[in-house]
Amino acid sequence: MKDFAITGSYTDLYQITMAQVYYLTGRQNETAVFDYFFRKLPFEGGYAIFAGLETVLDILENLSFTDDDIAYLQSLNLDKGFLESLKGFRFKGNIKAMKEGEIIFPNEPILRVEGNIIETQLIETLLLNVLNFQSLVATKAARIRSVAAKHTLSDFGLRRAQGLGAYHASRACVVGGVDSTSHVKAAMDFGVPAVGTMAHAFVQSYDDELTAFREFALHRPENCILLVDTYDTLKSGIPNAITVAQEMKERGEQLLAVRLDSGDLAYLSKQVRQRLDAAGLQEVKITASNQLDEWVIKSLIDQEAPIDIFGIGTSLITGSPDAALDGVYKLSYCDGKPRIKLSENIKKLTLPGKKQVYRLYDADQRPVGADVITFDDESCPDIMYHPYEPDKSLSLVSQNAQPMLIDTMINGKRCYAPRPLDEIARFCREKLAALPDEHKRFFYPHEYKVGVSEQLLRSRNELKNKFKKS
Amino acid sequence: MKDFAITGSYTDLYQITMAQVYYLTGRQNETAVFDYFFRKLPFEGGYAIFAGLETVLDILENLSFTDDDIAYLQSLNLDKGFLESLKGFRFKGNIKAMKEGEIIFPNEPILRVEGNIIETQLIETLLLNVLNFQSLVATKAARIRSVAAKHTLSDFGLRRAQGLGAYHASRACVVGGVDSTSHVKAAMDFGVPAVGTMAHAFVQSYDDELTAFREFALHRPENCILLVDTYDTLKSGIPNAITVAQEMKERGEQLLAVRLDSGDLAYLSKQVRQRLDAAGLQEVKITASNQLDEWVIKSLIDQEAPIDIFGIGTSLITGSPDAALDGVYKLSYCDGKPRIKLSENIKKLTLPGKKQVYRLYDADQRPVGADVITFDDESCPDIMYHPYEPDKSLSLVSQNAQPMLIDTMINGKRCYAPRPLDEIARFCREKLAALPDEHKRFFYPHEYKVGVSEQLLRSRNELKNKFKKS
Repeated sequence: MKDFAITGSYTDLYQITMAQVYYLTGRQNETAVFDYFFRKLPFEGGYAIFAGLETVLDILENLSFTDDDIAYLQSLNLDKGFLESLKGFRFKGNIKAMKEGEIIFPNEPILRVEGNIIETQLIETLLLNVLNFQSLVATKAARIRSVAAKHTLSDFGLRRAQGLGAYHASRACVVGGVDSTSHVKAAMDFGVPAVGTMAHAFVQSYDDELTAFREFALHRPENCILLVDTYDTLKSGIPNAITVAQEMKERGEQLLAVRLDSGDLAYLSKQVRQRLDAAGLQEVKITASNQLDEWVIKSLIDQEAPIDIFGIGTSLITGSPDAALDGVYKLSYCDGKPRIKLSENIKKLTLPGKKQVYRLYDADQRPVGADVITFDDESCPDIMYHPYEPDKSLSLVSQNAQPMLIDTMINGKRCYAPRPLDEIARFCREKLAALPDEHKRFFYPHEYKVGVSEQLLRSRNELKNKFKKS
Repeated sequence: MKDFAITGSYTDLYQITMAQVYYLTGRQNETAVFDYFFRKLPFEGGYAIFAGLETVLDILENLSFTDDDIAYLQSLNLDKGFLESLKGFRFKGNIKAMKEGEIIFPNEPILRVEGNIIETQLIETLLLNVLNFQSLVATKAARIRSVAAKHTLSDFGLRRAQGLGAYHASRACVVGGVDSTSHVKAAMDFGVPAVGTMAHAFVQSYDDELTAFREFALHRPENCILLVDTYDTLKSGIPNAITVAQEMKERGEQLLAVRLDSGDLAYLSKQVRQRLDAAGLQEVKITASNQLDEWVIKSLIDQEAPIDIFGIGTSLITGSPDAALDGVYKLSYCDGKPRIKLSENIKKLTLPGKKQVYRLYDADQRPVGADVITFDDESCPDIMYHPYEPDKSLSLVSQNAQPMLIDTMINGKRCYAPRPLDEIARFCREKLAALPDEHKRFFYPHEYKVGVSEQLLRSRNELKNKFKKS
């Protein structure tokens, strides 16, 4: 395959045909504002994690149409003058966004793009592609971390990932709280610790398991982890691993861990721990893998399985069972006017205008469980309204409010140095620690409320009525 | 982000540490054979589609470790001599495989790699990463195609895809029977028709819907599709679309379709069809999108919804609800000997040795519902055995058998010119047409039987007993 670069063609065709119409009708300098938000929390959880922002900013700073892109678009019979204009395309807009690693909730703007109508439209698809997926995986990672606070968590997902999606998925895992990855390229490019154990094939390739373990330990003693279930975990794998661990000790080395990859992980890990301890190998850890997710890991920990390191594959790297976050990118302002989209489903009615989101904190800087969406130029109001149930309101008097959408990119340039991944992960960890437990509950978490200001509600209803009549 | 290339670092770290041990112990010229197979059919269906082979061959023909890869591996304290050897790494092995687009079933080798133990081990992860995902998506596409034989099917999934996974997913959609994609880059690189409609933002950006439709039709009349649900499908969208369709007709142009993206698609499509027909616009098609999958499409067609074109997003591009195919890559032969992996779960017991798969056909070249796995040098046997239930066997006398694993790559070079995607799609369509209906049934399909030869069964049992005793 050719090297893969995200260029102007990494988009839906309709973005380009719509841009052509804006161009041909002389609208290219009209200002448009789009909001990125999602509607439904994944995994039946109480929160989601915002991830992928740095990736998007990297892409936008360098986005252009290649000669190949332009030649291909010419073959689709697009307008020549318009295509000529795309040759010089650069994104020069402004982006306000929540910080990457922040906790996010449905229906509130998480990111807001302002620029000319062509550039803001053209970036929709790539922005959704990156943010929806990384936020999904970071949320999954945070859920797994929430049930395994003291354990080492490793991403083992590359082989079951959705193709090249693996790359940014491994990044998003770290945002949400995973410690390391087996994926060498992701580890290298994102500065994540790379980890590895041993495959069944290695053991099989020797005539006996003991020789396989011994050779591995001799020739790669560093961070040595032996896979013990190729033939029989308790009768063969563990006795052989103990022999090799003791040989390593005599050489002044240390076996890092044994790895269980099949069978009942609770039963086996207890048996293995006993046998290792009885052999004086208290320092040898236990790694477990095989179809793990937050539910299985929680059950294993609830049953006091003495597992130190979890290697998590499919469910983490694909964010299953959800597969996708339903994030959308909706026009809220254009050509000097607020804009709205109606729907038969009231929950798909959009919020017009340039907006801000305030998060309310108590005196200890813990969120109180209420975010309020306002117009951009409003201060935080004293009362917020349910966006779809007008009878519901919540008094916000005397609480500490912080604006969540902050300048991220101005005129197509980042406002700050790229944030390192470990800093984003630390930020996420701190935010999750401060989030009240009721929103982090594993089963039936308490709903975090997102409301709107009176002014925004009124404006939305006026606009709705205007288009309903037509 | 940097341009993304699949190089030697697109792998799990353990592949590299295992290779180091093979290198340091002088085993680099030992021959190894690995099988790629999967264990469980996705989507509770009766078959799967093999996809991604051409992508894998492209990658393998060019795979190498970059200077950055080597420098990074040095930082992990790997052996200097070994890393020096990786600088010249090229895959020089042999690959036999089923043809891309072929129908595949659990537990049978779909692809077989033979080469030295280092090269065969190093490519495991990328091979699984590509084949598992493309086969999953091609299977999903084939299921959708199976319920919508005469409809146009378009992939609209880029925005909900798993990041860069979108790219090869759009390719795999076509293998399984999808006609076109909204993803410009995939369309361009894979030679797939690119299609596009219109976003709500386009309509919203005008002060009224009629002007939006009119301007779009004037400035992009080719393949023009109008999105009619921004404000109110029946009261606003359709009357405005009819007005514009008639204006186009007067100019000698034609509105291709209207698009429904919300509400009850069966009810709305019937209403819309009536109104278009009443306006003399029988030629204007109806496109539908919004959370479609094979179940919803089947229901819509069962209810005779007059929809011509389905645009399918999340469920197609992510292969939900399965998210991943559970394909594995297992060592079956090394250093002149057949190899086995045991398991507490008998279904995870592997089949040793270099193997072939025969598919049995009737006189009309339709599969009879039985594949048999044999040793490579066996001809098709007269009887096959259930791999895990020794009492079950099936007589195969006098049936027409074809070997399924054919030479694909020899000494690291493809044995044939790269197959164009449309040829692979046609091949898949023909194979699906010939597959008996009972295996294609949407609910509770009949199981296609995969058995083993007596010789293979005996060899596996001997090897199993050898390692069980140890």
